[in-house]
Amino acid sequence: MRRRHTTSRVASPTLSQTHLMLLRPLLSSASRAAPLLAAAKPRSPQPLAADTAAAFRQLAGMAAALAPPSTAAGSREAFRVAVTNTLERRLFYIPSFKIYGGVAGLYDYGPPGCAVKANVLAFWRQHFVLEEGMLEVDCPCVTPEVVLKASGHVDKFTDLMVKDEKTGSCYRADHLLKDFCKDKLEKDNTLSPEKAAELNHILAILDDLSAEQLGAKIKEYGIVAPDTKNPLSDPYPFNLMFQTSIGPSGLSAGYMRPETAQGIFVNFKDLYYYNGNKLPFAAAQIGQAFRNEISPRQGLLRVREFTLAEIEHFVDPEDKSHPKFGDVSDLEFLMFPREQQLTGQSATKLKIGQAVSEGTVNNETLGYFIGRVYLFLTQLGIDKDRLRFRQHLPNEMAHYAADCWDAEIECSFGWIECVGIADRSAYDLRAHSDKSSVPLEAHEKFAEPREVEKLVITPSKKELGLAFKGNQKMVLEALEAMNETEALDMKAALESKGEVEFKVCTLGKDVTINKNMVTINIEKKKEHQRKFTPSVIEPSFGIGRIIYCLFEHCFYQRSGKAEDEQLNVFGFPPLVAPIKCTVFPLVKIEKFEVVAKKISKALTAAGISHIIDMTGTTIGKRYARTDEIGVPLAITVDNTTSVTMRDRDSKDQIRVEVDEVASVVKEVTDGQSTWADIMWRYPAHTASAVDDEETVET
Amino acid sequence: MRRRHTTSRVASPTLSQTHLMLLRPLLSSASRAAPLLAAAKPRSPQPLAADTAAAFRQLAGMAAALAPPSTAAGSREAFRVAVTNTLERRLFYIPSFKIYGGVAGLYDYGPPGCAVKANVLAFWRQHFVLEEGMLEVDCPCVTPEVVLKASGHVDKFTDLMVKDEKTGSCYRADHLLKDFCKDKLEKDNTLSPEKAAELNHILAILDDLSAEQLGAKIKEYGIVAPDTKNPLSDPYPFNLMFQTSIGPSGLSAGYMRPETAQGIFVNFKDLYYYNGNKLPFAAAQIGQAFRNEISPRQGLLRVREFTLAEIEHFVDPEDKSHPKFGDVSDLEFLMFPREQQLTGQSATKLKIGQAVSEGTVNNETLGYFIGRVYLFLTQLGIDKDRLRFRQHLPNEMAHYAADCWDAEIECSFGWIECVGIADRSAYDLRAHSDKSSVPLEAHEKFAEPREVEKLVITPSKKELGLAFKGNQKMVLEALEAMNETEALDMKAALESKGEVEFKVCTLGKDVTINKNMVTINIEKKKEHQRKFTPSVIEPSFGIGRIIYCLFEHCFYQRSGKAEDEQLNVFGFPPLVAPIKCTVFPLVKIEKFEVVAKKISKALTAAGISHIIDMTGTTIGKRYARTDEIGVPLAITVDNTTSVTMRDRDSKDQIRVEVDEVASVVKEVTDGQSTWADIMWRYPAHTASAVDDEETVET
Repeated sequence: MRRRHTTSRVASPTLSQTHLMLLRPLLSSASRAAPLLAAAKPRSPQPLAADTAAAFRQLAGMAAALAPPSTAAGSREAFRVAVTNTLERRLFYIPSFKIYGGVAGLYDYGPPGCAVKANVLAFWRQHFVLEEGMLEVDCPCVTPEVVLKASGHVDKFTDLMVKDEKTGSCYRADHLLKDFCKDKLEKDNTLSPEKAAELNHILAILDDLSAEQLGAKIKEYGIVAPDTKNPLSDPYPFNLMFQTSIGPSGLSAGYMRPETAQGIFVNFKDLYYYNGNKLPFAAAQIGQAFRNEISPRQGLLRVREFTLAEIEHFVDPEDKSHPKFGDVSDLEFLMFPREQQLTGQSATKLKIGQAVSEGTVNNETLGYFIGRVYLFLTQLGIDKDRLRFRQHLPNEMAHYAADCWDAEIECSFGWIECVGIADRSAYDLRAHSDKSSVPLEAHEKFAEPREVEKLVITPSKKELGLAFKGNQKMVLEALEAMNETEALDMKAALESKGEVEFKVCTLGKDVTINKNMVTINIEKKKEHQRKFTPSVIEPSFGIGRIIYCLFEHCFYQRSGKAEDEQLNVFGFPPLVAPIKCTVFPLVKIEKFEVVAKKISKALTAAGISHIIDMTGTTIGKRYARTDEIGVPLAITVDNTTSVTMRDRDSKDQIRVEVDEVASVVKEVTDGQSTWADIMWRYPAHTASAVDDEETVET
Repeated sequence: MRRRHTTSRVASPTLSQTHLMLLRPLLSSASRAAPLLAAAKPRSPQPLAADTAAAFRQLAGMAAALAPPSTAAGSREAFRVAVTNTLERRLFYIPSFKIYGGVAGLYDYGPPGCAVKANVLAFWRQHFVLEEGMLEVDCPCVTPEVVLKASGHVDKFTDLMVKDEKTGSCYRADHLLKDFCKDKLEKDNTLSPEKAAELNHILAILDDLSAEQLGAKIKEYGIVAPDTKNPLSDPYPFNLMFQTSIGPSGLSAGYMRPETAQGIFVNFKDLYYYNGNKLPFAAAQIGQAFRNEISPRQGLLRVREFTLAEIEHFVDPEDKSHPKFGDVSDLEFLMFPREQQLTGQSATKLKIGQAVSEGTVNNETLGYFIGRVYLFLTQLGIDKDRLRFRQHLPNEMAHYAADCWDAEIECSFGWIECVGIADRSAYDLRAHSDKSSVPLEAHEKFAEPREVEKLVITPSKKELGLAFKGNQKMVLEALEAMNETEALDMKAALESKGEVEFKVCTLGKDVTINKNMVTINIEKKKEHQRKFTPSVIEPSFGIGRIIYCLFEHCFYQRSGKAEDEQLNVFGFPPLVAPIKCTVFPLVKIEKFEVVAKKISKALTAAGISHIIDMTGTTIGKRYARTDEIGVPLAITVDNTTSVTMRDRDSKDQIRVEVDEVASVVKEVTDGQSTWADIMWRYPAHTASAVDDEETVET
């Protein structure tokens, strides 16, 4: 989605709408929220490892007082408060530099959040880099101006800003207009149907308004600074990159990269060589990106520094088939093609194979990545009923882009773009090739040489020298630089009239060319290879947004034993759970503590993150604590030879021999088995002492 | 090592030497190179997994034409050229933004480099975060000024710079003086013994020279700009942080963090709470750090953006014992205590247990981390003969620091500081506590209440009101703010004279206090807990430097079959190898390719990074290619039921059943078994077809 505005205030006043779209699409806001989805639960064509856990979460969620977000704004708000309270209290995240009052749009991941992030990134590497044999690179955040000039960010990566004319406070112009319209529509009962329609229209076209149009509307509606009621300046573009200076001279401008992709594009030549000069191949990068938002909103969803994971899959523009497309073609999930959006329909379930064969999705490679992204997100624990792939509307898409789809996840803020999957054609490589004068091309060797028609312009140096003397070189170069149309026109004129007037820009005048001075022919040539600029298909993942949506999708509450008590649970799949297992001695006696330590040692050796809780508070309270940070398995040491293992979501308990504990935990957390699998292999545990988990003492 | 200068040009002209040392020690240059080490191979007290591979590397290295760096500068230079050529050609790293001419001090990791880095970081997480139960956090790089003001970086994180007075080119003042001295000493045969001694003295004290002293020497020796021979400006401090601005107003200064530690300190309160209000605990962070070097040198060792991994272990200053110290106390390795350095001796092997018990290392916790760092580095593949722990000299250490040791690794640039391990006492927490007014303290609950003597100052409001009316509050506050000495002096004066003159700063004058106005007593009180600011022990890892040294330590060459042919090998331990295994069909026939694909699938499922090479070039050439990127195991498919598995370093080959390949590779690369272990379990392979690996066709 293109959300960064360029306006006629930018240096070049002749920028057309087409130019406005040159900028790369970027992870953007959820402002273009679509109608809320109420689809039936889809049947997955491939059983996923996360399914069982998801089913448990769903069952548990049904019994809970607080259901996942529904269409009612109030309950969504309450749900969000419950989630974010738990997240903040358990240090999943912390407002950065809190002791100094914090900085808007900057957050730390605390210990459990940091572990979830590390798990998400490790799975991303496994699922994309390793399984697809991608070339991962790691480039600096500090980027010299020339790179971001070529990419268009220096000139066009802007938001329109207005300033409080008295205090200098800054606001996003579109936010103020949006808030005004929404507020009027919600609260003003005197609104005429015409006025309401007008305001709704503005909300619909908000992203397309120019600085002038936005300014005019702000004036027309008398919108003032929300905090002070002071008048506002005209809107003007504010570049969202953090600027800095590289080296000690202060003369070399640099920026903190707004995305990781450019680091891959500038390395195309080396990476192509590394891949044996063969296409297709994909490069990938995980790293920090920076955007100096004017006024960050929406908590963890709109921040000033965040982790991106980006893939640039380079492919022959004439062959965008994918050898492994068959592996995903039967996957069925919610898709929201352009036509459905424009005709007011909702997203529907579609097989990705069908979407590609019918032309809804432009090509197999794009379709393959859509399928792989679907698998990635759902295996992490994203609810497939609240995940859809939305195609960009024509006005959202850059003119050069072949097709773009966003993976949108529904959370309490609405549908949030979390992954953008775009076929960006050859735009980025061409931009850097032009600016750097380094060709960024691929070549295809033909099995058999091919006959092609080629324009051949052969100036006669002798004749040109006689006619133009010192100007000979300039004329010669101008002749050689003619494009096909110009050359064929000249050929025709020379054949009919024998001579022709020819403008030589470097001389600043016309000269007369006669037919002895140049030979122009279309010749048939044998070519052994073709050179071309590869197309790039770019899946770009906003890791922080995915993690936030995961938090919401995994969160549920269930009743405790005390009246009105609600216990919080993060039902993370073992894959992403920050801690895989807890170990509790049932009571504080030495022989149990010895066993607990022995188990802890075995878990460490197996590389399993776990906590050991010797505090001796009630088991119920200890379960509640670890449920709240989403620990899937809890071991209670209530015996010296075997222990109780409890599943977080079902609360089922089994008995496992002490020596087997680590391997069973590893089996479940590595995803080789589910809880359902192992439950049948071990005796159930039903002793009441360990059962009273809802008795939470305070 | 303190390498950032503060000079009297900085705002406060009264900064003393003590103030100069307030700044946190930071990973620094190898300028303080010590005499080269020629120690015997140490016997490791604990057999390490990496030992066997290291032994192979050493054996192979002996046969190589190019030995590991010796004391001869020329051969070190040649060795470095061979390593860096291989690193650049195989894209371990790439100068960033190369197509635009690059930026000094910025490098990308290409695919194999990126994989090595990911492996090093994953092992760091396993070895420190997981095994020690540390609290990992992830904070932003963008940091508001107030945080770095508190830490001292805004005022003191500087290098002294001189400018070419005509072109404005910038140089590090100490570099120019150092180069001048070295050059003179090396090339000027007419140098008098006195002059030589003077220049050597300057080299020795270079880090301690003030701006004035540096400037005076530059003038005295007539040092000019190296490129233009123009005169130079006086030296002045240049702050090495990349500056930026947070938010749209341009009024809120920010910097890209120069280290990750501050993010942990500002979160101390929350992390302490998360840990159940218990000490000791450690927090850890991995992330990018930024330093705008004046003129980066030494390739990958001195860069403008790099990855740090830092640990802050918070501990009661009165109890720095460590429960797991016994696990490392028998480790024996090269240590270079202060005394040895000052008396011109070399580093010697010492057991860390002994070093702590004799007081050479300040405390157990510091000693424990030194031991853990030793294990970390040697398990990665750092040669233990080229690793030493060097204690900071008194002039390198901040005045508040209890003790500091650097893990230094010897490479072709000399001894390089790669890990700093410092007991920083309570300095950092106090600095942020003072600046933010948020107490960053811990408390210890006493098992039994303790009787303590406490100063109690009780002003009489009534008397003060009568005497001072409107000024009452100021006098009262000044009385309450007295320290113990002041209060006891006043008490004595009041008892002997009945009244005393007392300066009230807020009033700017003295007032007379009589004995009715205040009661001062030392009272015995029962205390149930004590409050204190924890000490912090900080191991700080320069990941890029460790990786570069690892590259050098793992690199060797061996003769190929062709005359003079030298084959490059990176003998990485499986743990860090970028690719664990290659799969080659011996010849290009379908049945072998089918088996190769089957093995590839099994390796992917097991999460093992590998490459499959179907190009059909000679096996020898394919081996040479993968040896050069350090792939430990190669599978040659020469049969449909069993295959040849070849070890990179020994070149030994065994035969393994197709179905067992993935599990055998996993066993070796996970570190459960070494090649030596599995060699005895499988039949050796001796067929000549696969044996001709030195026949590299070009």
